[in-house]
Parts: sequence; structure tokens; C-alpha cells
Amino acid sequence: MSDLVDLLREGLPEAAVVTDPEVTAAYRQDMAGFCSSGNPAVLVFPDTVDQVRHVMRTATALRVPVVPQGARTGLSGAANAVDGCILLSLVRMNRILEIDPVNRIAVVEPGVVNAALSQAVGVHGLTYPPDPSSWESCTIGGNIGTASGGLCCVKYGTTSEYVLGLDVVLADGELLRTGRRTAKGVAGYDLTRLLVGSEGSLGVVVGATLALRPSPPPQLALAAEFPSTAAACVAVCAVMEAGFTPSLMELMDTVSVRAVNSLAQMGLPDSTAALLLIAFDTLDPVADLAAAGEICTAYGATEVVPAADSAESELLLQARRLSLTAMDTLGTTMVDDVAVPRSELAAMIDGVAAIAERFDLTIGVVAHAGDGNTHPVVVFDASDPEETARARESFDAIMALGLELGGTITGEHGVGLLKREWLAREIGPVGVALQRRIKAAFDPLGLLNPGKVF
Amino acid sequence: MSDLVDLLREGLPEAAVVTDPEVTAAYRQDMAGFCSSGNPAVLVFPDTVDQVRHVMRTATALRVPVVPQGARTGLSGAANAVDGCILLSLVRMNRILEIDPVNRIAVVEPGVVNAALSQAVGVHGLTYPPDPSSWESCTIGGNIGTASGGLCCVKYGTTSEYVLGLDVVLADGELLRTGRRTAKGVAGYDLTRLLVGSEGSLGVVVGATLALRPSPPPQLALAAEFPSTAAACVAVCAVMEAGFTPSLMELMDTVSVRAVNSLAQMGLPDSTAALLLIAFDTLDPVADLAAAGEICTAYGATEVVPAADSAESELLLQARRLSLTAMDTLGTTMVDDVAVPRSELAAMIDGVAAIAERFDLTIGVVAHAGDGNTHPVVVFDASDPEETARARESFDAIMALGLELGGTITGEHGVGLLKREWLAREIGPVGVALQRRIKAAFDPLGLLNPGKVF
Repeated sequence: MSDLVDLLREGLPEAAVVTDPEVTAAYRQDMAGFCSSGNPAVLVFPDTVDQVRHVMRTATALRVPVVPQGARTGLSGAANAVDGCILLSLVRMNRILEIDPVNRIAVVEPGVVNAALSQAVGVHGLTYPPDPSSWESCTIGGNIGTASGGLCCVKYGTTSEYVLGLDVVLADGELLRTGRRTAKGVAGYDLTRLLVGSEGSLGVVVGATLALRPSPPPQLALAAEFPSTAAACVAVCAVMEAGFTPSLMELMDTVSVRAVNSLAQMGLPDSTAALLLIAFDTLDPVADLAAAGEICTAYGATEVVPAADSAESELLLQARRLSLTAMDTLGTTMVDDVAVPRSELAAMIDGVAAIAERFDLTIGVVAHAGDGNTHPVVVFDASDPEETARARESFDAIMALGLELGGTITGEHGVGLLKREWLAREIGPVGVALQRRIKAAFDPLGLLNPGKVF
Repeated sequence: MSDLVDLLREGLPEAAVVTDPEVTAAYRQDMAGFCSSGNPAVLVFPDTVDQVRHVMRTATALRVPVVPQGARTGLSGAANAVDGCILLSLVRMNRILEIDPVNRIAVVEPGVVNAALSQAVGVHGLTYPPDPSSWESCTIGGNIGTASGGLCCVKYGTTSEYVLGLDVVLADGELLRTGRRTAKGVAGYDLTRLLVGSEGSLGVVVGATLALRPSPPPQLALAAEFPSTAAACVAVCAVMEAGFTPSLMELMDTVSVRAVNSLAQMGLPDSTAALLLIAFDTLDPVADLAAAGEICTAYGATEVVPAADSAESELLLQARRLSLTAMDTLGTTMVDDVAVPRSELAAMIDGVAAIAERFDLTIGVVAHAGDGNTHPVVVFDASDPEETARARESFDAIMALGLELGGTITGEHGVGLLKREWLAREIGPVGVALQRRIKAAFDPLGLLNPGKVF
């Protein structure tokens, strides 16, 4: 171990190599529950691409596993330490290297915080759409690692759509450049998109060229109360089938509505079984909201409240933003992340309610409804081993239901440690075997984030 | 060889296995120039996934190379036969299996013609945006193989953005399913996007789940005449920088304008050095066109002609659509496909003019200007070996210029045979080595489309 630290120090500043166990322990985990973590040998904070290359060359020379980390806001355990590893934190590589308004691109280091990029490009009338809930603290490198989504995906897609090119340090320390600065390009295999969502298991992202978009007009939202989640889900499909493209379409079930209501006194009636939030950032959001509101009413909404302006919109959206915090007041929470075809959303949410009953647990659901991406939140008492075991079982039952409905075990949080046993159930043995061969093509010694994904 | 044919016939209908040399010779090539092709051993037209699996199992058993083909409208030689190969034509697998308006997806076989899909989804008020010039004959499988672009990319992106999942027969005959039917999903590596653009070298696409969009309003176009390509390119950047997102933004240089003018008597003045076409499919295209037209005038356009309606728009766009046909009347043509950052478009087009002068050739340029994707068209006398050699040299000089300007050797046509020597110059030795390892992970015997891409 001291060999490792000595070698690392040959290419890193003194302060960038941390062995104090109290500090390294604080970096052992991301925000996932139900996930173990190992004891890291050392924590490093490189500041340059060359320093990252030195870390990887050292790891390869000594056969030491490496776990890349951003802000550790992930929800799948992908950033958790493994025993004896180098924790490779990229947070100090946080420079925005270039914003190019003519070509609508930004070039950034991986540790740039999502919100910092949004703010910096906003000055140029541009936006970087991907907006995971943790956008005020999560890093672009972490977003790339998990192909992060967010509220805006229903209109603007996920991180995958915005990464044009990457600089990546490979397991052996070689520097790979993928992709391009151009709007289009098909020279060779699309390694950029293979790397996006690979959870640090194929290489260490040390730079990214990102596509930006013109800032849209401010979005305007409505809130619609429904007497059942089924009715709300039918309205979701009807709005989409009518050809609308909302900038946000979020659904909260009765558990999450009540939790928010009691935390923040939102004044929602107890009869609200589901709350649907729809926003438009079009040129005429008032007209679009009116039309979407009529669809909601036609499908059974008991009340439709359109916001008069951006400030009112934000108040409506607060209900959604507070939902996880509100459910945290009910007990320990574990957020699942199952996406189904939009048409199966009602079956999914009703199925989760049945699972909650079967396991005698509280499970609230918030969903990026336009994308069919549900976040069932399992609430349990972590001090009770039996209830904790039931919580884990219900968590797995939710994934099984998602697969039955033609969905995926993870819409945007990733596989990490949490869902690795489930991956094969979704993609099958041919897919797993091929993914393992691809992993070996990048990382023949298996040093990068071992034990994750597969 | 008769072993091969006998074995193929064990799993394919009699008529689906073709050995008549006159027929097989007709399938030897796609539409690329400067590309050789070999003598195929046999041509097969499977009708089902199982038949494709039988073809690949046979190929693996006998170690016979396989070249997958769609409509052979490609422009890089990727579909050209290699000696002794099985030509695997997917054109008979041309069923649209499902159109799902609620989830906005289509499930298709690879031989479905792009235009047939567009028409079929149009009935549901939906659109499949990718629109390569060959859209009336090219297949979705071919589009996936090359990650095809088209005129709409500046607003709607390329084929990569619309493929959610694939069914792929691997080299050994195993069936791989990638991706999903959901809007989002991050379970494992993104093999779907790795396969899109892989030119049949990693597997044989036998099915695709595609994302659709609501049909936009009909687009309305303007034509602007400029006294120099430089002025037109500055206008292109200014329109984009102002935050507009046109549905089409095409540029024609003086050579292509004159060729079209003399073919179709478009009545364009000889002083037109560049013609810029801009279209919007927004809710208020008249206003957007007026604003874009003002920008054109501000940057030197001598005349701006907005269309009054869709019919007039189509007439304006005819100039662009006729440009390759018009240049074909000047001699043998060879279409290049270099994309540069939009800000370098003027340097690229002026540089091509300098290359034309240096090699004493006619080279016209049409460009998907909004994307910085140029198609320089080299005109030469194919019966003159010396001029043909100069044409090839100028073609290469155009790629070198593209790379110098921070661009890519291929924006949308692919590498195939035509540009394989250039790939390493763009992606470097680390990238090439890694791509070869990925190829080996999929196809360890190197049977799928050998000699292409690398």
C-alpha cells in the first residue's frame, strides 16, 4: 500500500493524495441505499489530465482497482469504494474550458457542476438541457457516467443526446479522444455514446465536448388533480397522442401528494389520488396549457390550475421538487427507477400500490410521466431488519413488474451495485456476454470500477 | 463453394439463394465511386430472422465473409462485395411490424424503405425525421448501418437519435436484442448506439424499434442570393447564433448554382455566388422567415425570396434537390462528405475552391450549412486516367482540409472502403486500436464486412 501511495505521489501534488482514513471513509459511498462499500486504499484529487494518466498508469502497474467519482450524488452505488481501491475523485477538474455560441458547444472538465454550466451558458442565451434532480451539486462527469436524465427529458432527451465528444483516460493510462466538435460525424464506431452511461467501467472521462441549445422561453405549468392514477395516466397518454411536446410532465401518486401536503401545507384536497404537472416552454404556453388542461378535464381531472406566470409555475413545481424530501420524513427511503412504455404507466403505478400492500409497506410514486419513468419510493424502518428485508424484496418486485410491462430496470439512475443482479434479466445472456467482451476490450485487467454493472 | 450453397439451401428457400453470376454481379456495388468490389460467391435474400441466423451460422462454420446490404444507395463502398463472400441482402425483410402512436414508436424490419415508413407513420400524425437524399429508395437497415443524416438534421438530428433498440444477428448466428421500447433506459452499455453507424461490421440488423415524433407543420422556405460564399456562411452562423432553429438550411456554391440554372432554367442571376435556402416548420414560419431574411440582408444578400406557401417552398428547394443531377451533366461526379464546425464553413468552401484551382478541376459544393456538413462534388472525365487520379487526389485534399479545420472526414456517408485510410488520421492510433478490439469482441473471426471501416 505504501508503494502505491509513493508511486501516486510521484505524479501528483502532495495534497492531492489522501490517506487519512477519516477522510477516505467519507468518500466511500454515493447516495444509494442497499449497497455495500469497501475500504479504499487511497483517495486522489487530480487536477490535470496528465495526473489522471499517472493515476491509471500506477493502477495498471500495481494492479490496483480504481473507482472514479464525481459528486457522489448517484443512486446506484456505482461510485462506491471497493476494497483496496484508488478512489479517483474528479471534482477538482472543474473548469469550463470553452463556450462557443456560434457552434453551440461547450468544452468542460468532468468536475464542472451541472448548475455551474447551466449558468455559464445561460449568459450566452444557451442552455444545457439535462437536469437531474441533483443538478445543483452533481457533476457533468457523473452525468456522463450514468447518462443522467431529469425533468426535461420528455422534450429534450438525456445526457446521451448532448455529448459530442470525450477525452478519456483508459485503464492503461492512454488518452483516447472520441467524437467531434461538429454537429454530425460518422467516422468509425460511436465510442462516445458507448462511454456515456458506462459508469466509469470503461475509462475515466477527463473532458467533454457538449452540445448546447438556444434557451427556450420560460416554461409555464399547470397542476391537475385526478381521482385516480389510472385517469391521470390516460390523460398523460392523451396529451402526448394529441401531438403536444410538454417541457415537463410529472405525476405524483396519493402517497407522495399527502406527504408533500403535510410537509408544506400545499392545500391539496385529501381526495387527490394523483397530481399531474404539465409545463410548456413554447411560444404560446398559455394556449398549449389550455388545450392540455381540457384534455385533463376530459379524462376526469377534478381541478385544473394553470399558473399565471413563471413565479406561479415554480410554486406548482415545488410540490414535485419537495416530494422526496417529504417522503424522507416518513422513514428511510429507497428510490427505484423503473421506466415502462408510456401506455403501461397506469399498470405500473397500480402494480406498485399492490406491491406496497403485499409487503405491508408505504411506497409512494413520483414519475417523469411523459417518459414512463417511475420513481417508486419505498419507505421503511432501517432499524428493523425484517422490514428492511421486506423493503428490499419490494424494491426487486418493482423491477420485476417493470420488466413484465416491457420496461427497463433503470430509466436514468444506472445499474451500479444496486441492480447488477437484475441486468441479465433485462438484457439476456447474449447481451451480458457481449458487454463483458466490450469491457475486456477497454480494460483487460478489470481495474476500472470492478464489480459494478455486471 | 457448392458446399456453401448446399448448406445455405438447408435453411433458405430455393429462390432466396442466388448464384447466377449475372445477378450476383449486379449486386456487387453500392453507389460510391473510387471503390473496388470483389466477386461474391452467392447472394441470399432471407425473409426471416431465423434465415439470417442460418446464413450467419453457415458463414461461421465455413469461415466465409458476409457483406450485409440494403438498397445499396450508400456512398462509401460499405456494401461492396469482397471476394468469395455471401452477399446478404435484407431487402425482402420489409415489413412494418408495428406503429404505436401512444408510445410514438415503430417496429420495423431492416428492408423497409425510408419513404414507406414516413408514409405509414404520417397517417397517424407522426413523422420519422431522418431523410437522406435517397429516402425514396434507401432502407432503414442501411440508414442504421451508416447513421444516415439528411436535410432535416439541423433541427431533428440523425438516425442515431431515433433508434431505441435493435435485434441483431451476431457473426456466430446468436440473436442479440439491444435497447428498449421505453423513452429512457440505462441498463448496461449502449450497444444500440454502438451498432448504429457500424456499417454492418459488428452484426446484422434484423429489426429496429424506432422513435417517432409528432408531424410538424409544413415547412416554409426562403432563398437568399449572396455575392460570396463567405457572406452566405456568415449569415448561416448569424441565424443560428440568433437562436433560430430552422428545419433546413442548405447552401449551394456558384458551381452548383450555375449547373442547376442551366439544367432547369431557374432564372438565377449569373452574379449569384451562393444560394442559401432556409426553412422553418414552426408555428409562425412567416415571422421566422422574415427575421432570418433580415439577417441575410444584413450580411449582404442581394435578394431574399420567401415562399408564399408550401408549393412555392418546394419549388425553391428543387434547386437544391436538382444539384447533384445537374452536376452529373458536367461529367463523372464523386461526392465528398466533410463536416466542419459551422464557424469554419466559409473557410471550408473557399478552401475547396482553392483545391479545385490547384487540381484544375470543377468542384461544386452543396452543404447542409446549418450542420457545417459540406458535400463537395468533384467533376472529372472518368475516361481520362490522369484526370481521374487528380480527382482522387483532390478528394483526399478536401478531407485533409476538413481535418485541419477541426472537422470530420465523414459527416453522414460513412467510412466504408472509400475513407478507411483516412480513419486513423481522424481518430488516431489509440482510437483505431480500441475500435479493432471492439470489432473482435463482436466478430472474432472477422467475417462481417471485412476490409471496411478500418
